[in-house]
Amino acid sequence: MIKVGIVGGTGYTGVELLRLVAQHPEMKLSVITSRKEAGQKVADLFPSLRGHVDMAFSDPARVTTLIDCELVFFATPNGVAMEQVRELLEAGVRVIDLAADFRLKDVAEWESWYAQTHACPDLLEGAVYGLPEVNRDSIRSANLVANPGCYPTAVQLGFLPLVETGVVDLNYLVADVKSGASGAGRKAEVPLLLAEVGDNFKAYGVPGHRHLPEIRQGLRLGAGREVGLTFVPHLLPMIRGIHATLYARLTRRDVDLQALFEARYANEPFVDILPPGSHPETRSVRASNHCRIAVHRPQEGEMVVVLVVIDNLVKGAAGQAVQNANLMFDWPETLGLTQVPILP
Amino acid sequence: MIKVGIVGGTGYTGVELLRLVAQHPEMKLSVITSRKEAGQKVADLFPSLRGHVDMAFSDPARVTTLIDCELVFFATPNGVAMEQVRELLEAGVRVIDLAADFRLKDVAEWESWYAQTHACPDLLEGAVYGLPEVNRDSIRSANLVANPGCYPTAVQLGFLPLVETGVVDLNYLVADVKSGASGAGRKAEVPLLLAEVGDNFKAYGVPGHRHLPEIRQGLRLGAGREVGLTFVPHLLPMIRGIHATLYARLTRRDVDLQALFEARYANEPFVDILPPGSHPETRSVRASNHCRIAVHRPQEGEMVVVLVVIDNLVKGAAGQAVQNANLMFDWPETLGLTQVPILP
Amino acid sequence: MIKVGIVGGTGYTGVELLRLVAQHPEMKLSVITSRKEAGQKVADLFPSLRGHVDMAFSDPARVTTLIDCELVFFATPNGVAMEQVRELLEAGVRVIDLAADFRLKDVAEWESWYAQTHACPDLLEGAVYGLPEVNRDSIRSANLVANPGCYPTAVQLGFLPLVETGVVDLNYLVADVKSGASGAGRKAEVPLLLAEVGDNFKAYGVPGHRHLPEIRQGLRLGAGREVGLTFVPHLLPMIRGIHATLYARLTRRDVDLQALFEARYANEPFVDILPPGSHPETRSVRASNHCRIAVHRPQEGEMVVVLVVIDNLVKGAAGQAVQNANLMFDWPETLGLTQVPILP
Amino acid sequence: MIKVGIVGGTGYTGVELLRLVAQHPEMKLSVITSRKEAGQKVADLFPSLRGHVDMAFSDPARVTTLIDCELVFFATPNGVAMEQVRELLEAGVRVIDLAADFRLKDVAEWESWYAQTHACPDLLEGAVYGLPEVNRDSIRSANLVANPGCYPTAVQLGFLPLVETGVVDLNYLVADVKSGASGAGRKAEVPLLLAEVGDNFKAYGVPGHRHLPEIRQGLRLGAGREVGLTFVPHLLPMIRGIHATLYARLTRRDVDLQALFEARYANEPFVDILPPGSHPETRSVRASNHCRIAVHRPQEGEMVVVLVVIDNLVKGAAGQAVQNANLMFDWPETLGLTQVPILP
Repeated sequence: MIKVGIVGGTGYTGVELLRLVAQHPEMKLSVITSRKEAGQKVADLFPSLRGHVDMAFSDPARVTTLIDCELVFFATPNGVAMEQVRELLEAGVRVIDLAADFRLKDVAEWESWYAQTHACPDLLEGAVYGLPEVNRDSIRSANLVANPGCYPTAVQLGFLPLVETGVVDLNYLVADVKSGASGAGRKAEVPLLLAEVGDNFKAYGVPGHRHLPEIRQGLRLGAGREVGLTFVPHLLPMIRGIHATLYARLTRRDVDLQALFEARYANEPFVDILPPGSHPETRSVRASNHCRIAVHRPQEGEMVVVLVVIDNLVKGAAGQAVQNANLMFDWPETLGLTQVPILP
Repeated sequence: MIKVGIVGGTGYTGVELLRLVAQHPEMKLSVITSRKEAGQKVADLFPSLRGHVDMAFSDPARVTTLIDCELVFFATPNGVAMEQVRELLEAGVRVIDLAADFRLKDVAEWESWYAQTHACPDLLEGAVYGLPEVNRDSIRSANLVANPGCYPTAVQLGFLPLVETGVVDLNYLVADVKSGASGAGRKAEVPLLLAEVGDNFKAYGVPGHRHLPEIRQGLRLGAGREVGLTFVPHLLPMIRGIHATLYARLTRRDVDLQALFEARYANEPFVDILPPGSHPETRSVRASNHCRIAVHRPQEGEMVVVLVVIDNLVKGAAGQAVQNANLMFDWPETLGLTQVPILP
Repeated sequence: MIKVGIVGGTGYTGVELLRLVAQHPEMKLSVITSRKEAGQKVADLFPSLRGHVDMAFSDPARVTTLIDCELVFFATPNGVAMEQVRELLEAGVRVIDLAADFRLKDVAEWESWYAQTHACPDLLEGAVYGLPEVNRDSIRSANLVANPGCYPTAVQLGFLPLVETGVVDLNYLVADVKSGASGAGRKAEVPLLLAEVGDNFKAYGVPGHRHLPEIRQGLRLGAGREVGLTFVPHLLPMIRGIHATLYARLTRRDVDLQALFEARYANEPFVDILPPGSHPETRSVRASNHCRIAVHRPQEGEMVVVLVVIDNLVKGAAGQAVQNANLMFDWPETLGLTQVPILP
Repeated sequence: MIKVGIVGGTGYTGVELLRLVAQHPEMKLSVITSRKEAGQKVADLFPSLRGHVDMAFSDPARVTTLIDCELVFFATPNGVAMEQVRELLEAGVRVIDLAADFRLKDVAEWESWYAQTHACPDLLEGAVYGLPEVNRDSIRSANLVANPGCYPTAVQLGFLPLVETGVVDLNYLVADVKSGASGAGRKAEVPLLLAEVGDNFKAYGVPGHRHLPEIRQGLRLGAGREVGLTFVPHLLPMIRGIHATLYARLTRRDVDLQALFEARYANEPFVDILPPGSHPETRSVRASNHCRIAVHRPQEGEMVVVLVVIDNLVKGAAGQAVQNANLMFDWPETLGLTQVPILP
């Protein structure tokens, strides 16, 4: 068992991480911080954890024990981890940031999309982008892992087999993605109220969303060249789940798409290619680290349509972070992540 | 057409009032105020009103035109109307307060439940409690109407036939009431997020809820004596609708409950007694001013169970306010309130 | 007032039509049929109609009074209207079919997608496709109107300004469309249960959906040439509303998209072009006949993204049928359709 | 590991049982039957089980392997288990019936509520009612366990501390209970559609529900005398969860209710008494076998209000069945049931 710290455990990513860490056989939660809830018992804020997590939130300003952990997760808003990571790394603590601070390699692009100055641009190069299906080996030896965003996880897993093999027109990729409301976080904002989101549906961020450069970076690396991507996120009247519907024009018509996808993910423990003709449902991965994918070519035409589902809080956040930790500490990659999805 | 003002039109009660006023043939919206949204167009905040309400919110600190209205609705938080009503009344403007400032006759009880000093206790006696099924005649001539709360409307309409006729034990009434999340208002609070309320259910305020003294006051007046009431509100994972399930012990077993309820509401345009054996659904009154009631006596035993549904934003707030206005201005009581409920 | 008949009034399209007809000042419901519910009172099946519709369902096998109506709506499954329409037309009754029997001009294509033989292919030529924004004048004089499908209404209204002016690549149009569950009808099927659809999201019909040829026909007529369309419908965990997200590649970069859309729909009473940068919500048209559209060009690139919302039961079905009836009988086009949308 | 069979695994109780059995370290699923889905792979019907359950449904008419199991669960409709149990018991197979066939001791009462003749009334006496908090020792040695209903589990756990100690008036107990739609089963019925249940709320079965005699039997045994109970179930617009709100009049005012409840359940692994003033949420037990309870005495009056939440599919069905199996086979009572609830 290693000692684990969590910085910022009061959001949805945080409580999901707590759920997974509490059930992980090799992790022992040593400290959890929250500025706002310091002193309160975790299980008073999240009664689902009664009997599973018997600890109070610590004041981040006073806590000194993070440095005694072997692994620290940041489940904080963007811009927090970059202020604290250097000290931890220098003390030999390994770090997984679930926010965006270390996801983009280009610091200028990061500062432009996140509208702040980066606190430690020199750490970007050494940070490993934590998508195991792409960077498994680098993650194993990484000290600083940038856990991918929820949309970028779904969109990259769906597009990678196509862009890596160059069978589609890379100039006109379309990602129409829909997310449950937990993806927007546990924030006191009117637009996230049940009476606003419920029985309602809309797109948002069409002019530009922060996950766009992250997805583009991943696809560019996979393709070995620049890609043209249109990315439209939508807000679903439900709690958990992301569904990405991806469109691309085939440049080769003789390709066996089903075989292509199955081969790409043949050894992946969490990526499941469904039989031809399938339509994955978000609930088929609810509360689990699975990603399920179906690939279609409607009417045997030129367009390929890829359907991808993940749970935004698990494979899109806390579960992927645990998967990365399993790699970093040489545990079985699925350790603590074998729960069956919840259906119905 | 009369000139109508609305103070505080950015909550759910406010937007519902706007919907009804915009469709009312005798009301012309003259001014609408909001401190927070002053200057913004109403239809920018509520796109459902595009093409129906072409007006901007006015700053309440600067507006002078309320005094030119014939009728002003307060759709403000508790404690706001009582600061402004006197000036309007003195200028001859009639007022309907959709909040709680004038609902309780006992100022000490009001101050205890609402935790503030009442600004104009002398106006309480003249204020009329706006439940037309009880106070129709007084409402007609009222200058200041206290529009009932949503829970109190449903619970009183369900219990009144029983308590007025004394056929139940008045010491042990139970009101188990469930409300859609719009009843909690359009407030930026974590507990109202879809990711908190959705796919979830709970009671709240069991130790004491502000609507308890209001209901007790109404039942006491109906019964002619004090009543013992246990009132438990619950939060439903949906937007609109209140369902009250009421329990009382019969003290007379020969009473024809169906006939009692039908007689009590025979001439009421908005109270609909369902056939024996019915279970009213909240959607059967969605977006309408109807109240539907079914009365049961399970296994012909001693207990009577009354089921009541209203739309909390219509008969429980804005619709009842318009019904009161119709009475005050001698228009047909159902004017502007004849929309068919929305199902599904 | 004219006498109106409804054939098959027990589905969601039927009950919505009943709601609108009951409130229409020029229509008098004369007869409503249902094989399954014959003899039952309409308001017993749909309590929302208590006090508004006081009539029982008639057995379609026995009813003779349809022929006395001036207008008959078919709210039946596909394949029913085509068996009965000829007799009504010959008797001088005008007909609006809300199902698909008369939507496609090519009988072979119809028979292939609907897997049955068409009963009256000779009537197809005279049938008018009831999209007023395209065929207003023909609808006025039509005796047989084919009311458009819900998806086709949203997708055509969003694409038409682009395809009519030829500013986009017509070979690669993408329509990613999401519908509330009422669009699937009031059918006793496991996949439509709340415990299946709720808190869940998925695509369906990716290999081919019956609305595809209907949309393609409309866009072909608008463009004056064949178009390539990829159409992916999805099922939303909510009741009402369609959101279409449309993608096309611009072939001319100097076009003012906002002006183009505003000009196209300048005189349309039910099509509302939102200000630049908007993201329409389905609830902004809930229970109303409005269609709201926003047009985007993300990062000033080559792709245009059009966002369209309608209520699938109103502009996507019953409301559009009433709009068509208003045209056919020379009433104001918005008669009986001026209700404010329900928000929240 | 023992060999386990499941009869009737296509309902929500069945798929939940599959989820738990697949994760149970001492159970090996040996056979699962379904008349309707015979031959189909389990994971094709429930994609959430892909990678966890690799087995097809067997035709119950042809299967002979049930008799080789050590334990068989019946997740069938009422009336099925009683036809097959005798043969299994005689072959030494132990049985847990998740339906109602063996819950009532009085065969006449059973036949009256379930409207059929009981196939094996002689087995009723030996069947043990599987509520571990009451019958733990008998369950250990039982060969036939009648797993309690979902409502009866919640209501009994909430009332037992009160009725066992006689501190309330046993003549007028009120149980106002609300259930998610999965409690109604995976049945192709219009009233269970999302477009019917969603954004809607209603009571049902007020004249009499089959769980009433089961609850009354349990409370009578606890109290040692007959009790008077009014039981009103309601249908919630959500998937999982039961919330019981229980009302009783105290006959002794000096009782420390909090201490009473804590003492009663001090050694229960799955019953959690919340701190005074709490309001349990259904999501705090989602997908877990926990039952959380809060006890209130509003305004220090005569009425006690008990709030109880369980997951209807876990503690209300499949989880309790596994808990019973753990007792029957002398495994730790919580084996395979330690998952953290899913929140949000």
